[in-house]
Amino acid sequence: MLQAGVRNLKTGISIRAMSASTRALSGTRIETDAFGEIEVPNDKYYGAQTARSKMNFKIGGPAARMPAPIVHAFGVLKKSTSLVNEELGTLDPKLAGAIQAAATEVSEGKLDDHFPLVVFQTGSGTQSNMNANEVISNRAIEILGGKLGSKKPVHPNDHVNMSQSSNDTFPTVMHIAAVTEINNSLLPELTALRDSLQKKSDEFKDIIKIGRTHLQDATPLTLGQEFSGYVQQLTNGIERVEKTLPNLLYLAQGGTAVGTGLNTKKGFDEKVAATVSKLTGFPFKTAPNKFEALAAHDAIVEASGALNTLAVSLYKIANDIRYLGSGPRCGYGELSLPENEPGSSIMPGKVNPTQNEAVTMLCTQVFGSHAAITFAGASGQFELNVFKPVMIYNLLNSIKLLADGSYSFRVHCVDGIVANKDKIDKLLHESLMLVTALNPKIGYDAASKTAKNAHKKGLTLKQSALELGVLTEAEFDQWVRPENMIGPKD
Amino acid sequence: MLQAGVRNLKTGISIRAMSASTRALSGTRIETDAFGEIEVPNDKYYGAQTARSKMNFKIGGPAARMPAPIVHAFGVLKKSTSLVNEELGTLDPKLAGAIQAAATEVSEGKLDDHFPLVVFQTGSGTQSNMNANEVISNRAIEILGGKLGSKKPVHPNDHVNMSQSSNDTFPTVMHIAAVTEINNSLLPELTALRDSLQKKSDEFKDIIKIGRTHLQDATPLTLGQEFSGYVQQLTNGIERVEKTLPNLLYLAQGGTAVGTGLNTKKGFDEKVAATVSKLTGFPFKTAPNKFEALAAHDAIVEASGALNTLAVSLYKIANDIRYLGSGPRCGYGELSLPENEPGSSIMPGKVNPTQNEAVTMLCTQVFGSHAAITFAGASGQFELNVFKPVMIYNLLNSIKLLADGSYSFRVHCVDGIVANKDKIDKLLHESLMLVTALNPKIGYDAASKTAKNAHKKGLTLKQSALELGVLTEAEFDQWVRPENMIGPKD
Amino acid sequence: MLQAGVRNLKTGISIRAMSASTRALSGTRIETDAFGEIEVPNDKYYGAQTARSKMNFKIGGPAARMPAPIVHAFGVLKKSTSLVNEELGTLDPKLAGAIQAAATEVSEGKLDDHFPLVVFQTGSGTQSNMNANEVISNRAIEILGGKLGSKKPVHPNDHVNMSQSSNDTFPTVMHIAAVTEINNSLLPELTALRDSLQKKSDEFKDIIKIGRTHLQDATPLTLGQEFSGYVQQLTNGIERVEKTLPNLLYLAQGGTAVGTGLNTKKGFDEKVAATVSKLTGFPFKTAPNKFEALAAHDAIVEASGALNTLAVSLYKIANDIRYLGSGPRCGYGELSLPENEPGSSIMPGKVNPTQNEAVTMLCTQVFGSHAAITFAGASGQFELNVFKPVMIYNLLNSIKLLADGSYSFRVHCVDGIVANKDKIDKLLHESLMLVTALNPKIGYDAASKTAKNAHKKGLTLKQSALELGVLTEAEFDQWVRPENMIGPKD
Amino acid sequence: MLQAGVRNLKTGISIRAMSASTRALSGTRIETDAFGEIEVPNDKYYGAQTARSKMNFKIGGPAARMPAPIVHAFGVLKKSTSLVNEELGTLDPKLAGAIQAAATEVSEGKLDDHFPLVVFQTGSGTQSNMNANEVISNRAIEILGGKLGSKKPVHPNDHVNMSQSSNDTFPTVMHIAAVTEINNSLLPELTALRDSLQKKSDEFKDIIKIGRTHLQDATPLTLGQEFSGYVQQLTNGIERVEKTLPNLLYLAQGGTAVGTGLNTKKGFDEKVAATVSKLTGFPFKTAPNKFEALAAHDAIVEASGALNTLAVSLYKIANDIRYLGSGPRCGYGELSLPENEPGSSIMPGKVNPTQNEAVTMLCTQVFGSHAAITFAGASGQFELNVFKPVMIYNLLNSIKLLADGSYSFRVHCVDGIVANKDKIDKLLHESLMLVTALNPKIGYDAASKTAKNAHKKGLTLKQSALELGVLTEAEFDQWVRPENMIGPKD
Repeated sequence: MLQAGVRNLKTGISIRAMSASTRALSGTRIETDAFGEIEVPNDKYYGAQTARSKMNFKIGGPAARMPAPIVHAFGVLKKSTSLVNEELGTLDPKLAGAIQAAATEVSEGKLDDHFPLVVFQTGSGTQSNMNANEVISNRAIEILGGKLGSKKPVHPNDHVNMSQSSNDTFPTVMHIAAVTEINNSLLPELTALRDSLQKKSDEFKDIIKIGRTHLQDATPLTLGQEFSGYVQQLTNGIERVEKTLPNLLYLAQGGTAVGTGLNTKKGFDEKVAATVSKLTGFPFKTAPNKFEALAAHDAIVEASGALNTLAVSLYKIANDIRYLGSGPRCGYGELSLPENEPGSSIMPGKVNPTQNEAVTMLCTQVFGSHAAITFAGASGQFELNVFKPVMIYNLLNSIKLLADGSYSFRVHCVDGIVANKDKIDKLLHESLMLVTALNPKIGYDAASKTAKNAHKKGLTLKQSALELGVLTEAEFDQWVRPENMIGPKD
Repeated sequence: MLQAGVRNLKTGISIRAMSASTRALSGTRIETDAFGEIEVPNDKYYGAQTARSKMNFKIGGPAARMPAPIVHAFGVLKKSTSLVNEELGTLDPKLAGAIQAAATEVSEGKLDDHFPLVVFQTGSGTQSNMNANEVISNRAIEILGGKLGSKKPVHPNDHVNMSQSSNDTFPTVMHIAAVTEINNSLLPELTALRDSLQKKSDEFKDIIKIGRTHLQDATPLTLGQEFSGYVQQLTNGIERVEKTLPNLLYLAQGGTAVGTGLNTKKGFDEKVAATVSKLTGFPFKTAPNKFEALAAHDAIVEASGALNTLAVSLYKIANDIRYLGSGPRCGYGELSLPENEPGSSIMPGKVNPTQNEAVTMLCTQVFGSHAAITFAGASGQFELNVFKPVMIYNLLNSIKLLADGSYSFRVHCVDGIVANKDKIDKLLHESLMLVTALNPKIGYDAASKTAKNAHKKGLTLKQSALELGVLTEAEFDQWVRPENMIGPKD
Repeated sequence: MLQAGVRNLKTGISIRAMSASTRALSGTRIETDAFGEIEVPNDKYYGAQTARSKMNFKIGGPAARMPAPIVHAFGVLKKSTSLVNEELGTLDPKLAGAIQAAATEVSEGKLDDHFPLVVFQTGSGTQSNMNANEVISNRAIEILGGKLGSKKPVHPNDHVNMSQSSNDTFPTVMHIAAVTEINNSLLPELTALRDSLQKKSDEFKDIIKIGRTHLQDATPLTLGQEFSGYVQQLTNGIERVEKTLPNLLYLAQGGTAVGTGLNTKKGFDEKVAATVSKLTGFPFKTAPNKFEALAAHDAIVEASGALNTLAVSLYKIANDIRYLGSGPRCGYGELSLPENEPGSSIMPGKVNPTQNEAVTMLCTQVFGSHAAITFAGASGQFELNVFKPVMIYNLLNSIKLLADGSYSFRVHCVDGIVANKDKIDKLLHESLMLVTALNPKIGYDAASKTAKNAHKKGLTLKQSALELGVLTEAEFDQWVRPENMIGPKD
Repeated sequence: MLQAGVRNLKTGISIRAMSASTRALSGTRIETDAFGEIEVPNDKYYGAQTARSKMNFKIGGPAARMPAPIVHAFGVLKKSTSLVNEELGTLDPKLAGAIQAAATEVSEGKLDDHFPLVVFQTGSGTQSNMNANEVISNRAIEILGGKLGSKKPVHPNDHVNMSQSSNDTFPTVMHIAAVTEINNSLLPELTALRDSLQKKSDEFKDIIKIGRTHLQDATPLTLGQEFSGYVQQLTNGIERVEKTLPNLLYLAQGGTAVGTGLNTKKGFDEKVAATVSKLTGFPFKTAPNKFEALAAHDAIVEASGALNTLAVSLYKIANDIRYLGSGPRCGYGELSLPENEPGSSIMPGKVNPTQNEAVTMLCTQVFGSHAAITFAGASGQFELNVFKPVMIYNLLNSIKLLADGSYSFRVHCVDGIVANKDKIDKLLHESLMLVTALNPKIGYDAASKTAKNAHKKGLTLKQSALELGVLTEAEFDQWVRPENMIGPKD
């Protein structure tokens, strides 16, 4: 049965029949798997199963490529398993050394070009695991002076994949990649954005402005207080992401095919977790229940839930800020956002809130990815969830978007926000809401009358009060003090 | 095996042992199903299987009750099947007549209280089908002078459910209910709201206002044009909903248990569809493929997709209008929305856009229901989708929310919207965007200089132009005419 | 402006014109708010604003009613604020006492019928806050011997709502209700279900069965191990829900209109939180940042995220179990699920997995509610999120569905699951996967040949091996021992 | 204000100060926009605004790149607008010719490398519009022998973007790209998959098998009937997608900045639509309301809804087929799926349903993209929706995934499905469900007894019937004929 066939067969020339020189010219070599022979490019370390997956899963194009952090995590994992296998005496030290050298290159991103597969492949990620086995095996063979594709002396399955199954390696790299990207990329950027907003909150602490509820004018607060709400959202958001780490730090490795650990030695699981921890610096532990770790990826759904909440926060913040910056003449106009690119050539002051647009757009992407992860996470069957690649693809994408977006929003927007004090002050004093301060002074009825008169005639409160003669200008200035309305009474 | 048991057994007294008078006092009677005996309230027509479902599915409370339109559709369907069975000679005319009388009462909503079940029951809706069979059977028995619960002379299964299976009746009532509610409730309300917005668009056709893109001041348009966009959205929305009707008009009836139509006579399916059409006035047809009609509910997902798009439109419209009505002093303030309830007792003019809030909230509910329907729709297995109740529950809920919301929004908001012409005009003329009209008159450079000077000093364009001496007041008034900026050139 | 009008005006008879006796006959009384007069039923404690909301928001019907836990939480809160106001000396002790008595009745669910409003109302929940104020005020008036609707001596705003705003009370009751329902209802039911699954895992610990990955036969595990994965999912799920409590335990009370705490005394916020804690037994704290607490409801989104993950887990568990119970002849058939209602009258053994269907359906509802909450949570504006009612409605619904579903699934399904040992054993031994145990004994090639021969001819492994003569029956029985394949090697 | 600055300034060397030769060595040239100077690579046609966007929006990496179909659609559009401008006499024919030549290259995908921007940019897609303007301008300049970056004689704004705004070009290319990809890629692949399933349905039309409802054995149907349900789902799916085309065929072009068409000549919109139609072969029309066309993208949400329903169908189909192919020994085992890659080296018959896994995974991605599109679609503001790029990105991704997935699933799975007739027949005859055929022959009681006896003792129906002596073997064989149970009676 060769329906998945070897491409060149279509030309009527069998691969074997082609002279080595012909293949050399075409830049390919022959690799084999249980399914037969297949050509692979000479300048790639991957082998037959990777090549076959490329043929069988032409789905999604470049945008669907397996994310680089997964590739790097495979490097970390394969190095770890080979160290443990060497320690346990099941792997020849010479082979182990070459595998570790090759795996290190993978972990460092040096061999990314050798990982061409997309996420829409086998749902266990088997083909990406084999891609890692093949690349590391061939690179190790090369290091040891062997022939690419010979599987000697380093066999992709027998040696690189020793004591492992795709079913436990792939969920393991899912967690390694997620923990790494969250710690190295997302949390630092979130913290920097939070700190930048805190700085603005401090800077704006004395600027009193009108509050808005239901989009309607309400009692005043400071601009610093308004921004403090954003700071709190991000502080919470950081904690929410951190709270998902304990479950992500559990590794499935050692469960092998169905979670029982068949074909491993006792302790293999714990040793691998310890080694991965040592290599990455993150405190990974072996999963307490490997059946759960293979058949469900609730930890990924949980982490996505935290990112979803974070996107909710960022959406609100970015949306508020663009409305507060709307104008320059016909909007709220309380903030000026930095100008990063030409808005309108003739319209000075028309600064489009482009960073806010990018941020709110990427938040909707995170919401969508969360929906995809939720559906995929619920769809595991018996001993295996076979939606692994699409789950981690979306999670890593959300992490990257939120990290990149936090950076971009901070550097190109938040850091440069300027408060338009004059406009803020003008709106505050035009507002009728300050009338509430007069209740205890002139009585509810007179206060209400003052406000109604102002509303009807388009007056300021002071003008109205003076017109009605309910108080003097001095009294008004003494009694109507927004700065006394921004906190509880002693 | 009696773990689902009969409640009173817990008291140690067997039901049989209780004298009839005791039961009479407790207001119950005994009904039986294949599973045994069970007490049911004397004042209810439902029987054993309904009572059993109530015990076994205490999930979700009143909010999760099977929607009334499903109950009424069961009335329509059972009447139709009994008419067809009578016509085909398989059902005794006397029994048929009683069934039709009882089913008519169900279809008219007279027996709603006899349908107590929740949607979180058997995924085929079997128990609601049995609920209908039991109620109609008992009511028919009553009409014919028989004894409730005796199943004589009208048996719930043999007569009321004749030639049917839950697997085809439930999808049939799903479609009957959806088509009915869409036509009788949603489409009229959408049309009324569209017409109301059209009226406002006409009313506002001469009010020129500043446009806003990226929330920033842009070139002008009329308020009527702005509202015409909303009208177009609803016009499209109505068409989108209408486009889903053809697939909803296909009925599964006649597929029986697995889609083959086993236990029906040839033509039964078409006759039922014709009868339902006659009774409802909607052009139902028998589904061309009954396997699809039982195993998948893509037509429901499709309809929900149209409602989802509609909610997207309504959200945008309601959101725009509340922002345009923001203020009264510190917002956009271009519209005044009707005041329907006390906003603030002391703050005249603080009219909270409460209808808009209700509408945007219900749109998020529709989005959520669509997600639930999508997941449930994808989860069919082999010959049956067993997420039927939750799918139709969410669809009918979306239909009701959108219909009710359209009504409420129209009557309590749109119809009463007033344009604040002064504010609109003031903003328009304060805007710097009109400067683009000066390009062909005084040249790009002078125009740009005028705008920049105005922006810097807080002047109007006219003030700035006069200050710079680039034109006369008369020229300005002649050249800067927003009314010439609201359409293409001849 | 009376476009929202008073219903009876339509009859042409002004309310005032109606004699008191006429109104008495019609069972109504007149109440007033800032907007004017309105009739309310005599047998209800609610007042004008509630009656007005009923008229203005006819959206969603009974299914959309404000959930009872919110009503009860209002009872707790209003009692707490009145205790604190009494302590701070701002509220007359006599009035305070009556308010506390009335509020206690609300908290105990005695006055649920007096809370008729739907969630699709003002987005701040203002009308439900006023509903609580009105009911408590009228009931307190009644206790003190006053006249309903007189607002004397207990005024709904001045006394019951003292030092409060809808903007801080509603988010406060959202959190009180969520914490209460999670603790009193969800967590106990989840724990009971987890324990029930643990019991089954223990019961099944010696039953070895075939594993399945990619739905294909794989290496064996015990049925107890399989169930242990479900237990782990729920153990994690319980922890996930618990991790959301700290943020739900923060109360917005004291923020008043925009978060500043205007019109409260310093310390009011902390005292209220302490009082609510005392009344409920849960360790509530005042929110560290009231601006965040009013303008965003990320804590609700976060909690919904945990419920979403939980639903993912439950979906997987319920789905696996129904597949394992599929049959009786033509499915997996490894489990027998309890029979709770008639399946097929003639088909013994056809037990439909109805509880699993209810559970998986409700999981899709939770997914949908999470989508709604996410959208609503992101849509806050400036100082207020006006999607409060729809957010808490969906969260409480998810909590209830998951709690009810856990109970129903446990009692009516899990507790009664029986392992079909014979079928499990038959499948295990028919499987070819056990051949892997022969590799070290007869060599890979002979083992592979044995499996291929069995596959081709439809033999068992043993039959095939004996036919090929690669080992003796005694050897086979000694070497092929599934019990040696269910864990790592020493 | 140069905070977005020019990168090389960081080295302390001003761009101007660098000699031309230095720049030549570094391979860059200087381009300018209203914001100032910026370096761009010499080997790229794009200019200052593109380079600036690259700096300001480092979000999402390669996976977030603006999809190629958008780039190609810009080629089509810019060619069309230049043809119309030439026809209307507003654009010099020589410049027009060069623009058309350059735009043709863009439309043919020859200049894809010159479009480096990501979707997370300005929400109007302005920067991608400018990217197109810059590339076409520079390429046209090159064709005319001018100097790259000189903007002479072809100016990116004045000539390439003549009579256009980003606000109308971007929604126009969204529709052009969507219509093109749906027609050229999705519909053909869907049709091919549907036809392939139809072929299988025909091939399997005489294979009678057990039906399954609630996952439980039910009455029989043919395998051809089962597949006919899938065919119907896809037939409907194709129609659903086609039904979205009319709204996608409306083009926003001519609306310019806010929908009024300012700066266009009357008829420009219709001429452009006609020209795009001519160039693409699809019957585009100008949008009847340009305000809606800029401010809302309901047509995209609508189209995504159809894709969502399609994904629901595909998920069901692919999921059913993998369960029917489960085994080889311990699953349903009714189908054999093609083996495309090594499953297990030692386990013959273990063919993992990898194509089904890829398809179901990509369906979850489509569900997620639909959620993102829904949220983004609802978030338009006033005259502009600024979530354009993320909306079309997700729509095109869904189109591509569904097209690629349909191809892959057809070629690598469906076409090679083989029915395991023996297994199907065995299951059918082991089933007890056929007993229903005996009711009219031996009576309900004897039939029921036969089934119960068989269930209890593990007998086949025939064995049980013979054991009980209720009929003869000949009678059984005559009466129990599944082929008489797969349709309605005459």
